[in-house]
Amino acid sequence: MGCSTFSNFPVLPEIAVAKVRKDAPFDKICYIGCGVTTGVGAVINTAKVEPGATAVVFGLGGIGLNVIQGLRLVGADMIIGVDLNNSKKEWGEKFGMTHFVNPKEVGGDLVAHLVNMTKRGADQIGGADYTFDCTGNVEVMRTALECSHRGWGQSIIIGVAGAGQEIKTRPFQLVTGRVWKGTAFGGARGRTDVPRIVDWYMDGKIQIDPMITHTLPLADINKGFDLMHAGESIRSVVVF
Amino acid sequence: MGCSTFSNFPVLPEIAVAKVRKDAPFDKICYIGCGVTTGVGAVINTAKVEPGATAVVFGLGGIGLNVIQGLRLVGADMIIGVDLNNSKKEWGEKFGMTHFVNPKEVGGDLVAHLVNMTKRGADQIGGADYTFDCTGNVEVMRTALECSHRGWGQSIIIGVAGAGQEIKTRPFQLVTGRVWKGTAFGGARGRTDVPRIVDWYMDGKIQIDPMITHTLPLADINKGFDLMHAGESIRSVVVF
Repeated sequence: MGCSTFSNFPVLPEIAVAKVRKDAPFDKICYIGCGVTTGVGAVINTAKVEPGATAVVFGLGGIGLNVIQGLRLVGADMIIGVDLNNSKKEWGEKFGMTHFVNPKEVGGDLVAHLVNMTKRGADQIGGADYTFDCTGNVEVMRTALECSHRGWGQSIIIGVAGAGQEIKTRPFQLVTGRVWKGTAFGGARGRTDVPRIVDWYMDGKIQIDPMITHTLPLADINKGFDLMHAGESIRSVVVF
Repeated sequence: MGCSTFSNFPVLPEIAVAKVRKDAPFDKICYIGCGVTTGVGAVINTAKVEPGATAVVFGLGGIGLNVIQGLRLVGADMIIGVDLNNSKKEWGEKFGMTHFVNPKEVGGDLVAHLVNMTKRGADQIGGADYTFDCTGNVEVMRTALECSHRGWGQSIIIGVAGAGQEIKTRPFQLVTGRVWKGTAFGGARGRTDVPRIVDWYMDGKIQIDPMITHTLPLADINKGFDLMHAGESIRSVVVF
């Protein structure tokens, strides 16, 4: 289940409509209207990740997996996925994740663990060039910021927090050069960026099919919610 | 009083030493080693403010005034200074401030007041393109972030907060496109940027003399601290 809207007679603002190629399968590319564009766009438009970068992605669901494939697309070197559910390791690896961390299995501080993992070559300070929160948990958002590299690390909030919840950190984290950002719809301009991502899908540069774990008739729409709540689906597409 | 160090036989790492032109007066350009470079550098290096921008500067002391003259240097259109002390209005105006706000005299919410002031032309959303905290107060840091423009506003923390204090905001502020940054020494590379700022001072592009409100012999060094704590000085230079 995603955030797409459907009805027999939808009324949309014209900037929310994008023309895409006719040979693209609608029961797959519908996902581009939300999670794919958000995840890939966060990497390309918001963070502007460069080849060779190190990155950490928190939360390997329908957004996080798209961040991972966005990172692979732009040539990131080290793509660390973080999730409490070990079954997500295999999912992450399908889309380009190079390392997996389950915080429940880390002895000690998670920030220190991730900073240590990202020490490479002459850089013995550590910290990721880019980190992405795809959980909506404000404590995870703090962890994501604080495991980014001092001097230049950027942390991008994608997840949506509960009403009234606040993110917190010591200002020293920013004064020492980290940047805290967020993104909605991956900073994409839908009319131009959505058709481009459809092309990337048709050219095999990004994958969508494996993430659509279920396709349901309209009569079974409530089953889609059940699968989502149980963590058994990445995305379900409803056909009608 | 600034953060310069002196002794008869100083030992410094070589990257902390910059060669400057011989005709520059040392009892003025010593200030470039801290406040001037931090304030001007925050505008040029960290925020990369462009001509025509709108900006809000919180705290019109020895750092804030340099942020203001940095904003003037790069051609900002609207430079709003915010301080609890009305005597700072005249100070800000000397360096290029275009509008002054005393939060104690604002009826209602300060963020809403500043957002309203920055509505210009067709932009009826409001919010500043760039905001700078030069207070070290974590509540002011939040106000600075939240009065920056949604979609592209950047807020730069320069002030140093008390030990253990934390900044807070709703993640929605970042998801809707604001960026939270910080800076130390204005993101300057001392060896190349300090001599450049000395040139700017000698060429009249920036001012330093008016900010040096007191020059004291070494025997009166404690008077310098008294003046600073009483808010009577911007900067005192100690000669020996």
